[in-house]
Amino acid sequence: MQPSSLDELIDALRCLPGVGPKSAQRMAYHLLQRDQRGAGRLARAMGHALDVLRHCDRCNTFTEEAVCQRCASPRRDASLLCVVEMPADLAMIEQTQSYNGLYYVLMGRLSPLDGVGPRELKLDKLLARAGDGSVREVILATNFTNEGEATAHTLATLLSARGLSVSRLSRGVPVGGELEHTDIGTIAQALVERRGL
Amino acid sequence: MQPSSLDELIDALRCLPGVGPKSAQRMAYHLLQRDQRGAGRLARAMGHALDVLRHCDRCNTFTEEAVCQRCASPRRDASLLCVVEMPADLAMIEQTQSYNGLYYVLMGRLSPLDGVGPRELKLDKLLARAGDGSVREVILATNFTNEGEATAHTLATLLSARGLSVSRLSRGVPVGGELEHTDIGTIAQALVERRGL
Ligand SMILES: [Zn+2]
Ligand SMILES: [Zn+2]
Repeated sequence: MQPSSLDELIDALRCLPGVGPKSAQRMAYHLLQRDQRGAGRLARAMGHALDVLRHCDRCNTFTEEAVCQRCASPRRDASLLCVVEMPADLAMIEQTQSYNGLYYVLMGRLSPLDGVGPRELKLDKLLARAGDGSVREVILATNFTNEGEATAHTLATLLSARGLSVSRLSRGVPVGGELEHTDIGTIAQALVERRGL
Repeated sequence: MQPSSLDELIDALRCLPGVGPKSAQRMAYHLLQRDQRGAGRLARAMGHALDVLRHCDRCNTFTEEAVCQRCASPRRDASLLCVVEMPADLAMIEQTQSYNGLYYVLMGRLSPLDGVGPRELKLDKLLARAGDGSVREVILATNFTNEGEATAHTLATLLSARGLSVSRLSRGVPVGGELEHTDIGTIAQALVERRGL
């Protein structure tokens, strides 16, 4: 006896990651009962984003143009290409203000258990970009999780085979980190990758 | 350097209850990258729900008509009015198939700390409905939480003052419940409210 428009909204909310039937219902009631303005804004923002957003032809991140502003900038060092998993990772690296090269955003990571292989991740697009003649070094900045490491390993193999110089962010004890509060896996890596002084 | 349409979508997602900046960002990326169809459906479902849903003139639940099908049904006992917090509570009571009266859905509960008082909960609408001459008994079925109990207490006072007969769902050990696994507050209530046999 529940109106179909309400059923449909609750069902549609379940496309959000981590939202099950109970929380979809709670969200629908909240929006309709307490925040119709927010709901209207969300419906419009979602429709608009779907209309105008696309992937940058060069770096694959979300953009409203064919080539994003960063890739089009003449002030960036086009010989360096840093590969990250997500736009949020790119934002973190930009915040360091210690990198002036370009990026490639995978929009994910290899994850065989979730059905994300080289094809799903469109690695062809990265290989074409990295091999376009302008890139001297590819810096792999995928996460240091199991999946991120496996992705970096696969990319290193593919890119090296094409004659490109490949590097990876260093692992070790975080800046400001105390050994007592650092996990032993990280300390072990910091020992293995110790630098001569 | 992030497109404004993406920023706006991430920001708009934060109107969802329990969604902070990080999870709004994760949701936006997921929808744009992995489920554009679901996102389109959600945007349309939300817009449609906002257009067509309203509150039933009689029971206050969500409906697409002025008076919902249940309130309009001649097969319901109009002398009984069961007051619940949310449509989900109404659905639970309907599932028992042991009630054939009508309902009033508060769409919330009194919650002074959240700024929800009698005015925000539009208790005037309930009082007008309960006092329309057709209702003989009002059954308070708000939750047995602190806020639900306080709401029931306030409603009992207001409704009794208008000469209505008021009852409350009984408390006690759940059907099938073992004392060993029942909280002591519930056992204490079951003792106080014990029934003569
Ligand atoms: Zn780009
Ligand atoms: Zn109704």
